[in-house]
Formats: sequence, C-alpha cells, structure tokens
Amino acid sequence: MLTFVGLGLFDKTDISEKGLRCIREADHVFLECYTSLLMGSSREELEEYYKKPVLPLFREDVEQHPDNVLRLAQEGDVAFLCAGDPMVSTTHADLRMRAGALGIRTAIIHGASISSAVCGLSGLQNYRFGKSCSLPFPQKNWFPTTPYEVIEKNLTQNLHTLVYLDIQNNRYMTIPEAVSLLDQMAAAKGTAIPLYVGIARAGSDAPVVRAGKGSILADVEFGPPLHILIIPAVLHDMEREYLEMFAGL
Amino acid sequence: MLTFVGLGLFDKTDISEKGLRCIREADHVFLECYTSLLMGSSREELEEYYKKPVLPLFREDVEQHPDNVLRLAQEGDVAFLCAGDPMVSTTHADLRMRAGALGIRTAIIHGASISSAVCGLSGLQNYRFGKSCSLPFPQKNWFPTTPYEVIEKNLTQNLHTLVYLDIQNNRYMTIPEAVSLLDQMAAAKGTAIPLYVGIARAGSDAPVVRAGKGSILADVEFGPPLHILIIPAVLHDMEREYLEMFAGL
Repeated sequence: MLTFVGLGLFDKTDISEKGLRCIREADHVFLECYTSLLMGSSREELEEYYKKPVLPLFREDVEQHPDNVLRLAQEGDVAFLCAGDPMVSTTHADLRMRAGALGIRTAIIHGASISSAVCGLSGLQNYRFGKSCSLPFPQKNWFPTTPYEVIEKNLTQNLHTLVYLDIQNNRYMTIPEAVSLLDQMAAAKGTAIPLYVGIARAGSDAPVVRAGKGSILADVEFGPPLHILIIPAVLHDMEREYLEMFAGL
Repeated sequence: MLTFVGLGLFDKTDISEKGLRCIREADHVFLECYTSLLMGSSREELEEYYKKPVLPLFREDVEQHPDNVLRLAQEGDVAFLCAGDPMVSTTHADLRMRAGALGIRTAIIHGASISSAVCGLSGLQNYRFGKSCSLPFPQKNWFPTTPYEVIEKNLTQNLHTLVYLDIQNNRYMTIPEAVSLLDQMAAAKGTAIPLYVGIARAGSDAPVVRAGKGSILADVEFGPPLHILIIPAVLHDMEREYLEMFAGL
C-alpha cells in the first residue's frame, strides 16, 4: 500500500495524529524533497520524531525512477510524506496513477495547506479568491508575465489572487523580490498594483503578515522562508478591519 | 490567549500534534458547532480523546454573546476548535477581531481543509480552480441562481469550480440533490453541465469519489455526509486519466 501523508505547514508537529500513526506503522518512509519543504524541521529531526529512517526523494527519484518506491509498496506499507497537503502538485498525482496501474492500493492523509491557511492569516475571504498563480525567478531572456495577467483578470472580476513564490534548490523567493517583479510587470502595462499582503512562515509560532503597497512591503523584514503573497481585490469592510488589526494596514 | 485550532476533515485523529498539545494545555476548550462538523467523531468522543471537557458553541454564542469566551481568554488559555482550517468562515474572523480589540493575544493552528483536499481526491489541479461558491437549499419563493453564474463564468475561463453544499441544522445537502439543482439552473438557461465530480467523506478511510454527468451521479450511493461537488473545466489529459482511474469516469 502507498499512503500519501501531508505534513502540514511548518514543522514536525504539524502532522495529524492519523498521519503519524500511518508513519509509525509503515515499513518504509520517504520524504518528497523537491516541491515544498517543512522549514521548521530537518529530515533528521523527522527521523528522530518518528523513530525510524526517513529516505529523501528528489524529482528524478519520483518522476524518472519511481520503481523502487512502487516495488516496496507492492510488498509492504509505504508512507510518502510531503509538506502541506499531498497532491496539490501534479508529480504526486502521477505517482498515485503509476501505483494504481500496478494494482497497488493508495490512500491520502491530508494536511494543512497554505492555500487555506492564507485566509485565516490575512482575513481575506476564501470564496473571494480567483485562480492562483506561481511567480518564477526570471532567467536570462526569460521574464514571463503570465502571473500578472492572472492577477489583472482576477482584479477585473474583483477577486483576490494567491501568488506562490518560486523555490529553486535552496533559493526561496522573498516577498520583497516578488513585489518588485510584479510592480515591474504592472508598470510595463502602465498600471500599478494598489495593495499586497505578504505572509511569511505560515503555520509557525511567529508568522509575519503585512499589508501595504509595494513600496511599503519592500522595506519590511519578513525573515526566513517560506514566503507567499496575495493581491487582494477591493476589500470588504471586515477584510479591511482585519488587515488593519493583524497586518499593519 | 485565544487559539483557533483546526481539527481537519473527518475525525478526532485528523488534528495536528501541535493542535492537540494546545488543547491539552488549555484552561478551556470550546467547539464551534455551526459552520461545519467533524462527522467521524462526536463532541463526547473528543472529550474522551482530549481527556477534558469540550463546550459546544452555537452561532448565537459566538456572534451575539462571545463575552464568556473572551473573558476566559483574558484570564487564561482558551482553545477554540473548528472542523477544517479555522477562519475560512467569517464568523471566526469576527471573533478574532473582537479578541484583538480587547488586547487578547490570538493564534491559529491550521488544519486540513476540504478546499485543498479535493485536489488530491479528484486529481484536478489546484491552480485551475476559479472562484468557489456555495449552493443553498432552495426555500419557498427563493431559488438563487448565483452559484450557477459563478460556475458559468469559471467555465468560460476554463476554470474548475468547487461548490460547497448547504448544511442547515442536521440537514446536509447530498451530491445528487446538488446535481439536480444545478442541472435545473443550467436547463433554465438552455445549457447543460457536461461533467461533475462528487466527493463524499473526504479525509475518512472510505471517501467516495465519482465523476460523470448529472444523470450518472444521480444514481450513485455516496453514503453519509459531508458531500462536496466540483464542476471541472475542460480536463487536461492527466486529470482525465486520474478521474478514470480513481473516480470511475
């Protein structure tokens, strides 16, 4: 059997009781290390917490050579761990289908996801979010503006946009970096983004949540990753009050 | 201090380790009993699991008379429990603001939410969801068609729609009921919804996930609540394969 277990947002104690029991009973435990990361606990700390080995998996292990994981899941119980809620990433869906095709039983034990956590931290209402987008690090001769187009379309419909910030190897895009990129994209179109909400370390004991225009957020010390960004639509009164009280608006 | 603790999706073991520790250390524990429910565990089972009293809170307790909860949070540590991830509902945001206005420290311990769990269960990709909507039970002389308008607008933009089904007292809208309502709304506009994905009991050991058009889902035995519905946009190949494998498409 192959069980996908969501570890939640920040550290080893964000896992559910159900997920922990699954890990304790598993024959093999793997940790997916390439789509997201638990910033508050290292793999070694997880091993100590679970009292069993936790083997790291990188993109090529899952997408090119999943044979080992699948073979073990045919013979015994495998727990496949990932930060957040499993399957928000397509790479997990692909692995589940490969397992299904081999007749391996699969299950999902859900974990807290940044996609809903942002609502509580910002007070922005869940049903007012439109399509989300990802903001990649620009590369030489490559500066995609699709994220801005998603934001613009949402704003036209008076919807909030959640913007996932790029993670590449050990490089994490920060809120000030993201704001600067988006401000450039808006300026190129002769417009401006009136308000941002930046959230750092959701799920930790000390998340930082700050609302303001780009020039304000550029100077905020958000601290270590992970960071995420929201572009709010026109605020409802209650959303505004919440941001004033909890995000320094 | 007032800590909002998400209980996750289905039963008492869906809470995080962090949330459980907060409850065990709290002076008072309240359970919000009106926006959503943990179908797999009663309040009494939670009391036994936590080994302390869990006091129920109904809408009027939180929205009209929160004084008791707030007073206790001024004097000691209060854990405010709710199914899913806290704050997706505005009533929680309101309570947090009232606490903040009184100078009470607040925090959120996140839990798994249906809003991300549906991605794993259906294989429908998170970034392809547009605005979500809620489908209320029709009442005498009141048959709002706004949910259908949200769906239609999303479909025009090739985006999936998550449809939250009504909960009223002990009445839970089922997937077949919802499909029938939406099919009526579509028919009234001379159109039809080509595909639905129904999900029952997300987070349990036996979730039911089925994809098909309305006439197919009308005959599926989804079993006990909670139910939720997705209207997918045009499927990507991988989404289609996933639904074929795990949702009987």
